[in-house]
Amino acid sequence: MTFATTARAPETARRNGVMHSGSRIVPEEVPIAFSYGGSSHAVMMATPADLEDFAVGFSLTEGIIAKPAEISAVEIVAGGQGIDVQVSLADDVADRLQARRRSMAGPVGCGLCGIESIEQAVRPVPDVSASPLMLSHADIVRAVSLLNEAQPLHRETRAVHGAGFYLPGGGLIAVREDVGRHNALDKLCGAVIRAGESGGNGAVVVTSRLSVEMVQKAAILGSPALIAISAPTALAIRTAEAAGMTLVALVRGEDFEIFTHPHRISPGSIADVA
Amino acid sequence: MTFATTARAPETARRNGVMHSGSRIVPEEVPIAFSYGGSSHAVMMATPADLEDFAVGFSLTEGIIAKPAEISAVEIVAGGQGIDVQVSLADDVADRLQARRRSMAGPVGCGLCGIESIEQAVRPVPDVSASPLMLSHADIVRAVSLLNEAQPLHRETRAVHGAGFYLPGGGLIAVREDVGRHNALDKLCGAVIRAGESGGNGAVVVTSRLSVEMVQKAAILGSPALIAISAPTALAIRTAEAAGMTLVALVRGEDFEIFTHPHRISPGSIADVA
Repeated sequence: MTFATTARAPETARRNGVMHSGSRIVPEEVPIAFSYGGSSHAVMMATPADLEDFAVGFSLTEGIIAKPAEISAVEIVAGGQGIDVQVSLADDVADRLQARRRSMAGPVGCGLCGIESIEQAVRPVPDVSASPLMLSHADIVRAVSLLNEAQPLHRETRAVHGAGFYLPGGGLIAVREDVGRHNALDKLCGAVIRAGESGGNGAVVVTSRLSVEMVQKAAILGSPALIAISAPTALAIRTAEAAGMTLVALVRGEDFEIFTHPHRISPGSIADVA
Repeated sequence: MTFATTARAPETARRNGVMHSGSRIVPEEVPIAFSYGGSSHAVMMATPADLEDFAVGFSLTEGIIAKPAEISAVEIVAGGQGIDVQVSLADDVADRLQARRRSMAGPVGCGLCGIESIEQAVRPVPDVSASPLMLSHADIVRAVSLLNEAQPLHRETRAVHGAGFYLPGGGLIAVREDVGRHNALDKLCGAVIRAGESGGNGAVVVTSRLSVEMVQKAAILGSPALIAISAPTALAIRTAEAAGMTLVALVRGEDFEIFTHPHRISPGSIADVA
């Protein structure tokens, strides 16, 4: 099942003091509900594409599953106002989720995807320091440059986020786009593990700013390096520091800034490696 | 109570091929829990400033209160890992929230702040067409220019969003900043209604993209005009169209694009009015 990811919106534009009637391609934004065992879990406002990746990635980064095999089926059901992504879980995983839901009954959770309390919001992230991944300066510049070239929806709309997975020597093996940066990263996580690739082998590259949730998601994927075009928050830096993750941000052309665990970035000029 | 809104992060920067050790000012990002009547409602990752505005604005745009007087007290309690904003409601409002929570018991909500289903996610927004607000081209350019000048946290970090409330003839009467664009707008809504100003008298101006939730929040404030520096989604445009709200986006210098209800934008050159 495919859905339109863009729409043409009529508009009146002022350019150089003159009014023009025309239109602009804008991204669609659709309520996408995730249901587990017939019970609604969350509604995300998202780009209606790569929904199987989204289901697997969201289930992974929410801690509902540990690997794709724990999902027995994903059914995409289009409704009048949105899309219901119905996920069927392996029996023991469904039981675990049911128990977790019971323990959270009472007040309604929110803000961080059903996770209620502050302690849960700053849940410990997996330690990714065991990965032997190394990145050269050229890898960083190349990963961002490849990501910029691999975003068809952004090229059309200039209004969506992208997330990619970069293997040194292998380039970007997956790129996903979404109106929401968290969704783009969840879709990427799903695409990477569905492809059978290990998160520990590569770097996550994103077009957006780095809030703590981006670090949490990359760490759950197992990636020890997160590269962003924009800036990190203080909490994202502290969380990456604790997780053993190398955070590189503000990549502009051949310039960039390394905030944590620089040992993973090999010295040497870009010309040496490119 | 005040909290640090920025931190100085050590970093190693590559500039023009040379590595420099230094530091960068980055925005803090803190888990902020909202509790009503002692029961936790949501955790947002946010900038720890203007928390009373945030409490009032969030309660308003979440539909928990209709006016500031329905909140009897706001207490800010700092914890080790976050901040608990404890909101006390007037008795009848607390009863209403309790009934709403009971009706939503069962699966855990998320994604759109406790609102479970897709139908609730695309809840009808208030009609704002009755407002007589008119904006000139100069108002649009001036509102964005004033907003760009009124963001101390963004000037320091280049990494946060801003939202302002613009009165034609009166300029920006409030500006709020946050690492999250939804939070910045919630804080602004709180600031506007706490100041006793009517949302129908002015335009909301934001630095970010326009997703549907931004339109919903501006409509709940009562503002009939939403001006953004970046682009809107298709759903944001459809929602603004239905609500009678004028959407102006992609404001760059003296250029901009009008997507809905252009009747509220008076013709005439910027030079005529400025």
